[in-house]
Amino acid sequence: MISDVRINGDRLWHSLMDMAQIGALSNGGCGRLTLTDDDQIARDLFTQWCEEAGCTVTFDRLGNMFARRPGRNPDLLPIALGSHLDTQPHGGKFDGVYGVLAGLEVVRSLNDHGIETDAAIEVVNWTNEEGARFAPAMLCSGVYSGLFDLEFALTRVDKDGLCLKEELDRIGYAGKEPCGAHDLGAFLEAHIEQGPVLERHDEIIGVVAGGQGQRWYDVVVLGCDAHSGSTPMSGRRDALIAAARIIAAVQTIALDHGPEGVGTVGELHVCPNSRNTIPGEVRFSIDFRHPDDNALSAMDEAIHAVADAERDAEVQLDMIWHNPPVHFDSRCVEAIETATRALGYPHRRMISGAGHDACQVARKVPTAMVFVPCKDGLSHNEAEWAEPDHLAAGCNVLFQAALTLSTHSALVPERPA
Amino acid sequence: MISDVRINGDRLWHSLMDMAQIGALSNGGCGRLTLTDDDQIARDLFTQWCEEAGCTVTFDRLGNMFARRPGRNPDLLPIALGSHLDTQPHGGKFDGVYGVLAGLEVVRSLNDHGIETDAAIEVVNWTNEEGARFAPAMLCSGVYSGLFDLEFALTRVDKDGLCLKEELDRIGYAGKEPCGAHDLGAFLEAHIEQGPVLERHDEIIGVVAGGQGQRWYDVVVLGCDAHSGSTPMSGRRDALIAAARIIAAVQTIALDHGPEGVGTVGELHVCPNSRNTIPGEVRFSIDFRHPDDNALSAMDEAIHAVADAERDAEVQLDMIWHNPPVHFDSRCVEAIETATRALGYPHRRMISGAGHDACQVARKVPTAMVFVPCKDGLSHNEAEWAEPDHLAAGCNVLFQAALTLSTHSALVPERPA
Repeated sequence: MISDVRINGDRLWHSLMDMAQIGALSNGGCGRLTLTDDDQIARDLFTQWCEEAGCTVTFDRLGNMFARRPGRNPDLLPIALGSHLDTQPHGGKFDGVYGVLAGLEVVRSLNDHGIETDAAIEVVNWTNEEGARFAPAMLCSGVYSGLFDLEFALTRVDKDGLCLKEELDRIGYAGKEPCGAHDLGAFLEAHIEQGPVLERHDEIIGVVAGGQGQRWYDVVVLGCDAHSGSTPMSGRRDALIAAARIIAAVQTIALDHGPEGVGTVGELHVCPNSRNTIPGEVRFSIDFRHPDDNALSAMDEAIHAVADAERDAEVQLDMIWHNPPVHFDSRCVEAIETATRALGYPHRRMISGAGHDACQVARKVPTAMVFVPCKDGLSHNEAEWAEPDHLAAGCNVLFQAALTLSTHSALVPERPA
Repeated sequence: MISDVRINGDRLWHSLMDMAQIGALSNGGCGRLTLTDDDQIARDLFTQWCEEAGCTVTFDRLGNMFARRPGRNPDLLPIALGSHLDTQPHGGKFDGVYGVLAGLEVVRSLNDHGIETDAAIEVVNWTNEEGARFAPAMLCSGVYSGLFDLEFALTRVDKDGLCLKEELDRIGYAGKEPCGAHDLGAFLEAHIEQGPVLERHDEIIGVVAGGQGQRWYDVVVLGCDAHSGSTPMSGRRDALIAAARIIAAVQTIALDHGPEGVGTVGELHVCPNSRNTIPGEVRFSIDFRHPDDNALSAMDEAIHAVADAERDAEVQLDMIWHNPPVHFDSRCVEAIETATRALGYPHRRMISGAGHDACQVARKVPTAMVFVPCKDGLSHNEAEWAEPDHLAAGCNVLFQAALTLSTHSALVPERPA
C-alpha cells in the first residue's frame, strides 16, 4: 500500500553532478571543506534550488540550513530529510551531498505530482559534518541535539588558527535562530554506505537501525631534538620512533576487537620535521570505533596502557570526543523497511560503520537512515562512486517513508501549544 | 715551538652571541635557514666584521663567501678557516657559526699582534650546509669540491617550491666567480662535536681524522584513502601503518650495525592528513650513517629488503645521496694535533659523526677539523650549548695550526703559474 509515484533519478543524478563542480578536484572528487568559499557557493546553489522548488530557506546560528515545503496541518512538526554538503579534503561526490539532494528530489517529486502532505517536509544541510576542518565531526548536528554547547562549536579552530564563528560570519551563514530551537517531527538521512557490506551481498538498500560508537583522541609524543648523525642510537629520545610504536598498537588493538572494531591514525605532524634532526615532538590523532560501547572502553584502556608503557618519550593521550553507540527510532526504521519491502529492493538491516548527523539528531528527534552501496566500499576518497540506479532506489525509499510519516499524523508529535 | 699569542675568548663569545640574535628563537636557539632574509642579515654582518678586520670579501656563484687577509707571498695558496652560518629550523647558536667566527677571531688576533703570514688567511662561509631547506646537506661545499654540478645545486627546491637560484639572487649573494675556481691551500674547520664523546671523557679537543659515510633516502608509501569508520581493518591499505613498520625497521637496522651505525626518520608528511580518513600516501626521509662504507651498504640492502617485503602498500625507496666515509689530510691533522699537544689540552683523535663542509672540501683541498665538546652532546636543538673556555681552546688550536700552515710554505702548494 504505497504511492505509485517514483522520484526522477536523472534529475537527482544531474543535481549531484552539478553540485560536484563546486570544489572539484583533478581526480574526480571534491575538496569542499566546511565554511570555505566553495562551501558558501554550494550553500547558495542549494538555496536557489530549494527556492525554485517553492521552499522557504532558513538557517540557525551555526548555519544549519532548513528548506521548508509547507504541509496541510501547521500544527504538525515537519518531517526532515537531509545530511551535509561539506566534504573531506580529498572527498567524493556523494558522501553527505546525496542525503541533501535526495531530500530536495523528494520535494521536487512531490511538486511534480501536486502531492500535499499533512506535515511539512524540510530539507536539511548540517554544518561541519566531516570534522576535517573543525574537529570534532558532526559538530553542528551535535549542538542541535544538545550534545555540544553552542560556545564550544563557535570556538573550534582550524589548522590555520581560524575559528568557526569567524568563518561562519565571513561566508554569511550565521543565522539568528538558536541552534536546536528548530523543532522536527522526524529526521531521515539517505547516505552511501561508505563500506563494502551491501556491495558484497548484492543488496541495494541498507535499513540502518543505529550507529557504532566512536572515541577520538589527540596524542602528543615528546622526545628530544638532536643531531641525526652524531647522536648514538643509545642516547636518543626519538618522538617519531615512539609514535610509530603507538600507531602499530592502534592497528593491533582494533584487530583484537575485530571484526567490528576499527582504529585509525589519520592525521600526524612531526616537529621540527627536518631530515637530519631527530624529531623532538610528534602530534597525531586516533579514531577508535565499535558498535559495542564495552568493547570501545576496552580499546580505550588498551591504548592508555600502551601510552603509559612508553619509555623513550613522554606521551600525552587526550580523548577529545566520545560518541556512544546509538539506536534509531523503531517507527522511523519501520517506515523505511516497509517502503523498501514494498518497492521490492534487496536489502538488509545494518548498523552504520561511519558516524552521521543522524546519529546526533537521533538523541533529540525520531530518526532513521537509508544506505545505498558505493563502489568497493570506498569513501573519503576522490574515487568514491555510487550507481545512479542505486541512488534513485534510495531516494524512492526516502520518498515513500517521508510520505508515510508526513501523512499519518499519528506518527508525528504535534507542535507544543 | 708555538706562538705565545692567544686568541681573545671574550671577543669570540660576544661575536657568537651577537650573531645568535639574527633568527633568534624563544627557547634560546636560532632558526636561520639558508638564503632567508635572516641569512642575508647574518651574511651582511659577517661581511662588515671581516672588512673592519681588513679583509676583502668575495663570494662565488653559489654564495660561498671568502674573506681574505693577505699574506707576504702572493704565490702561496691561502689557508682557509671556516664553516657555515645557516642553521636548522630549531637550531642552536654554535653549529657552524662557531667555525666561521673562530676563523674571524684568528684574523682579529693576528691583527692585534701585527702578525704577518706567508700565505694569506681566508675565512669561509659555505652556503646551505644544513640541507634543512634545500636537500642535500653540504650542498655548496660539495659543488666547490666537484661532488655536485652547479646546475644541480641551483635547481634544488624547498617545501614552498622556491628554488635555490631564485633565493640566492633575491638576497643578493649570487657572485660571478665560478664555484670551485677559488683555490685554497688548506681548509681547517672548527666545530662543536654535536655528540657526547668528548664530554663523557672530560676532553676539550677532538682532533678529527675523518668523517663517517652517509646515505639519504626519500620514501613514498602509497596505500588507499578510505573512510576510517566504515572500512573494515581487513580491507585497508593504510599507508601510515606501512610507514610505521618501515620507521621501526630503520631503528632496528641501525641497532644491528651499532654502536657506530645510526638511522633516523626526521621528516614525514601524511596525505590527506585528515583524522577520519585512512592515509593513502605517506612521504618521509631516511638518514643512515656509518664510518665503514661496507656496513653502510649492508644497511642499504636491509632497508631495501624491508621496502620490498611490504604487502599492504606500495613502497618507493630512492637513495638521493651517498657520501662515502672521508679521511682527512695527514699534514693538516698533524698540524692540529701538534698545536693541541703544545697547548696542553686533553684531547683524542676521532671520526666525525656528523657531516661537515670539511668532509666535502677534503675531496679537493688538504683538510682537517677540530672539535670542542657541547653540553649533553646535544645539537640541532635550541638547547645546544658549548662552554666559552672550550670554544676559546678550540680557537687557540685553530690559530696555532693556521699559523703553522701559513708560515711553513713547504706545507702549502704554490698557486699554479
